[in-house]
Amino acid sequence: MSSFKSNALRGTFFLVFGLGWSVKYPLKYLSRKLNADNQASRWIQKLDILEGAAKAFLAIAGMLAEQFIPDGSHMGLYSGGTYSWEKLTNWQYTTMYLFYGLSGIVDVLAYSPLKLSLGLDRLLLSVAMFTEGFLFCFHDYNNTALDQHLHSLLLIAIFGGALCALMEVFLRDHTILEFFRTSFFILQGSWFWQIGFVLSPPWGGPGWDQTDRGNFNFLTMCFFWHYAAALLVTAANSVFSYWVKNGVPSLCSSEDGDGWQERDHLIIAC
Amino acid sequence: MSSFKSNALRGTFFLVFGLGWSVKYPLKYLSRKLNADNQASRWIQKLDILEGAAKAFLAIAGMLAEQFIPDGSHMGLYSGGTYSWEKLTNWQYTTMYLFYGLSGIVDVLAYSPLKLSLGLDRLLLSVAMFTEGFLFCFHDYNNTALDQHLHSLLLIAIFGGALCALMEVFLRDHTILEFFRTSFFILQGSWFWQIGFVLSPPWGGPGWDQTDRGNFNFLTMCFFWHYAAALLVTAANSVFSYWVKNGVPSLCSSEDGDGWQERDHLIIAC
Amino acid sequence: MSSFKSNALRGTFFLVFGLGWSVKYPLKYLSRKLNADNQASRWIQKLDILEGAAKAFLAIAGMLAEQFIPDGSHMGLYSGGTYSWEKLTNWQYTTMYLFYGLSGIVDVLAYSPLKLSLGLDRLLLSVAMFTEGFLFCFHDYNNTALDQHLHSLLLIAIFGGALCALMEVFLRDHTILEFFRTSFFILQGSWFWQIGFVLSPPWGGPGWDQTDRGNFNFLTMCFFWHYAAALLVTAANSVFSYWVKNGVPSLCSSEDGDGWQERDHLIIAC
Amino acid sequence: MSSFKSNALRGTFFLVFGLGWSVKYPLKYLSRKLNADNQASRWIQKLDILEGAAKAFLAIAGMLAEQFIPDGSHMGLYSGGTYSWEKLTNWQYTTMYLFYGLSGIVDVLAYSPLKLSLGLDRLLLSVAMFTEGFLFCFHDYNNTALDQHLHSLLLIAIFGGALCALMEVFLRDHTILEFFRTSFFILQGSWFWQIGFVLSPPWGGPGWDQTDRGNFNFLTMCFFWHYAAALLVTAANSVFSYWVKNGVPSLCSSEDGDGWQERDHLIIAC
Repeated sequence: MSSFKSNALRGTFFLVFGLGWSVKYPLKYLSRKLNADNQASRWIQKLDILEGAAKAFLAIAGMLAEQFIPDGSHMGLYSGGTYSWEKLTNWQYTTMYLFYGLSGIVDVLAYSPLKLSLGLDRLLLSVAMFTEGFLFCFHDYNNTALDQHLHSLLLIAIFGGALCALMEVFLRDHTILEFFRTSFFILQGSWFWQIGFVLSPPWGGPGWDQTDRGNFNFLTMCFFWHYAAALLVTAANSVFSYWVKNGVPSLCSSEDGDGWQERDHLIIAC
Repeated sequence: MSSFKSNALRGTFFLVFGLGWSVKYPLKYLSRKLNADNQASRWIQKLDILEGAAKAFLAIAGMLAEQFIPDGSHMGLYSGGTYSWEKLTNWQYTTMYLFYGLSGIVDVLAYSPLKLSLGLDRLLLSVAMFTEGFLFCFHDYNNTALDQHLHSLLLIAIFGGALCALMEVFLRDHTILEFFRTSFFILQGSWFWQIGFVLSPPWGGPGWDQTDRGNFNFLTMCFFWHYAAALLVTAANSVFSYWVKNGVPSLCSSEDGDGWQERDHLIIAC
Repeated sequence: MSSFKSNALRGTFFLVFGLGWSVKYPLKYLSRKLNADNQASRWIQKLDILEGAAKAFLAIAGMLAEQFIPDGSHMGLYSGGTYSWEKLTNWQYTTMYLFYGLSGIVDVLAYSPLKLSLGLDRLLLSVAMFTEGFLFCFHDYNNTALDQHLHSLLLIAIFGGALCALMEVFLRDHTILEFFRTSFFILQGSWFWQIGFVLSPPWGGPGWDQTDRGNFNFLTMCFFWHYAAALLVTAANSVFSYWVKNGVPSLCSSEDGDGWQERDHLIIAC
Repeated sequence: MSSFKSNALRGTFFLVFGLGWSVKYPLKYLSRKLNADNQASRWIQKLDILEGAAKAFLAIAGMLAEQFIPDGSHMGLYSGGTYSWEKLTNWQYTTMYLFYGLSGIVDVLAYSPLKLSLGLDRLLLSVAMFTEGFLFCFHDYNNTALDQHLHSLLLIAIFGGALCALMEVFLRDHTILEFFRTSFFILQGSWFWQIGFVLSPPWGGPGWDQTDRGNFNFLTMCFFWHYAAALLVTAANSVFSYWVKNGVPSLCSSEDGDGWQERDHLIIAC
């Protein structure tokens, strides 16, 4: 698997969850507000289980892909011939997917009769993201400074998301934290695609110059443009979900005073 | 635009908001305490909308200034002739203003019938400041150690303000956090002016010696003198706003015991 | 004492507490839920005192072992002959055990008639872990890069556990924090064993190559496999304790809706 | 002023406040518990004002000492003759005392009819400590590695205390945080004395060898022994204050069950 396909695969994994959450959380929030009956709870419960199962399934698929693609590691870790470790990068991504898989399994088990502590699912998601972050921190980028710079920027998205998930252990169902985490997931997904395009363009060629300082400065900015786009996409999906569910509001409505009161109410509900 | 004018522009942007907040927050606090009726709420609401619109307008003005001044980037980013990125510093500040612009737009939308989650405006302000901070972190200061040192000190003000704004997402309308954030904004504004005077004095000349260690040590101290001044200005404006609204208190009043009770009351109200 | 035995001793110290907690905390949690009478409280109280005494005793044993083993420091710190400090590594581990000993003494005193502030026991545990972490941070790994890398990874477990304990000062008896801290203790214990095997294998030989970059990358991954194992062991012990106390639940029970209600109840109890 | 006297002066400043707090906070806590009438509140109030005034007075004394001692800076900052900054170290400590002075003034003003926001005194203390920490961070230790190492260790105490004070803005009168902050102040005071003895012994001589790695390792340990001593002193003073106020408890009292209930009560009162 070429480096581009591999990065695109990872990017798609995070984009799927980020975009999915950007629709799911506003809907969950609206359902809870509109009707407090059991129907909405059950529907969210089913979606949570489905999400956990999808996460576990995609993680296992990712692990198998890293191992059994033509130039994968095929479960071999140490070469007796050369007395050296081999295919460590594939194993590193396998480790990363392993933790996301554990997180998916806990998401599903949270609704089993095992009665797990509430918050354990967010904790495992946070652990998965911290693991991913530390793996990139301690990765050995031998003499490829641009590669390292790209992954340093990625760390902002990873650790930002991990801290969000960690805070959600204590502040569950906080709309702002869910919004923030969603935007970080979309950012991470789109940045993996960008890394693929920069380091190994799909149309062939050697990738960008690893020594040009201009590339470093441009990509730093580019990362924050990705984040601006991620914020806009998350916001647009929230508004869109709201309109699909409630209808487009007339902008000149007379409920201004009510809106103020309702917002006071919401913060209490959080 | 010479470096001095550019730094002065940025400094003025932050000083305007910092000084504005140093008057606005004490007044908001007093209004809420004195009369709990709707009138004060509506007045604060209008001020918030105005502030958001001003922030968005100034940010757009800043973006246009960085692009279309004589030696700006004129929307050009990549030079086909030299195969290199050009005017990246202008683009970097454009990115910075972009996020402050987004923050301003969200400030305005917070009062629209869209019913945004409470706290999203503070989150976007925090994101704008973190973005600014990371842009300065990853900036390439090629061999200008004093330049880097000045911006390292600036990072204390930027990240301090960003953390304040982030905590306000969860502890909204906390007077101490607002005081702290205001002082960091004034510090940031006055430090941008200082950077301008050090690196490119308006009366011409080459700027300070980039290699003299004494300059480094002096500027470190100087930064904290700026902060002491920022704290004093914020405090003086608070006291002044209080006196304008309430009249000067007689220092020998007999309401000492009451003051104690009232302070107990205030912390509960927070 | 060879380096392997010394590392194995430290690893066993942390494993004993980590595995003990992985059984104790679920049982405490179940006791509290099932019967709110004094009997459970008294039983937990006795276990806490026993744990504190064991911690203090093991710490003193560790201190004596570091001092009075054949190649220990025998209370000598400065050699007048060579004008140099000697056996500083032994003294460093003595310092580490000293703080764990203080933590154990405070655990016992927390139930004495001295009426210590609640939370002081967690604070001292946190202080002990931070001390351990800073001692490893400032340790002088002269030219042994692999040694330093192994201890850098260990710092993740140490500071993670220290932060958990610090948060427990404010959020006492939080099941998630206790779960997290337990998993970090097991990780720390197993990683000390791993350090022993890597740096000074018990079957003799020179330890792993300190210059091979492959070793660095493999051990980074290996650390997170240890953590995955630590999480699984903690989870398995929790489930096992639950089954021993309550009997194995039938997976097809009809109490799904109740389970949801009960979980809502639990988060309030936390 | 030789470096030893200067360090001893700083150390005494922090020791006086640390030891004073180690007696004041337990007494405050006991007064509040025993009698909830106004008398205790007024007594604490007077002590707080006295403490603030002492802090402001000592800070001003420190500033004057740094300026007007024989080899002080005598208000001179820039030498026109050599075109260089002079006596920057004296100015740095003047800056440090300035912020402690501001903190002392706010402590006093907190009880004035100005009605400051509760928590502002703790915020200013935190700002003073962060300022001190950043001044040491950015200080230029030209080629004196041991000097830098000693101040790096000091930073643990400074930033630890600063974080405690910052948390007290939000969790006022939290006994654990006050205990922790007190221990960090005592540590800082005793470590300044240690720095004096290491770098410029009062009996003359050149100070310790700046290149011996053994010195680095020993001093790291030594710092934590200081902390163990600081913890013991703080704890002993707490217990002593308790005994002076309440009489020595009999260790075989029958109030064990009551003690447990009372402790549950205390955490609610916090």
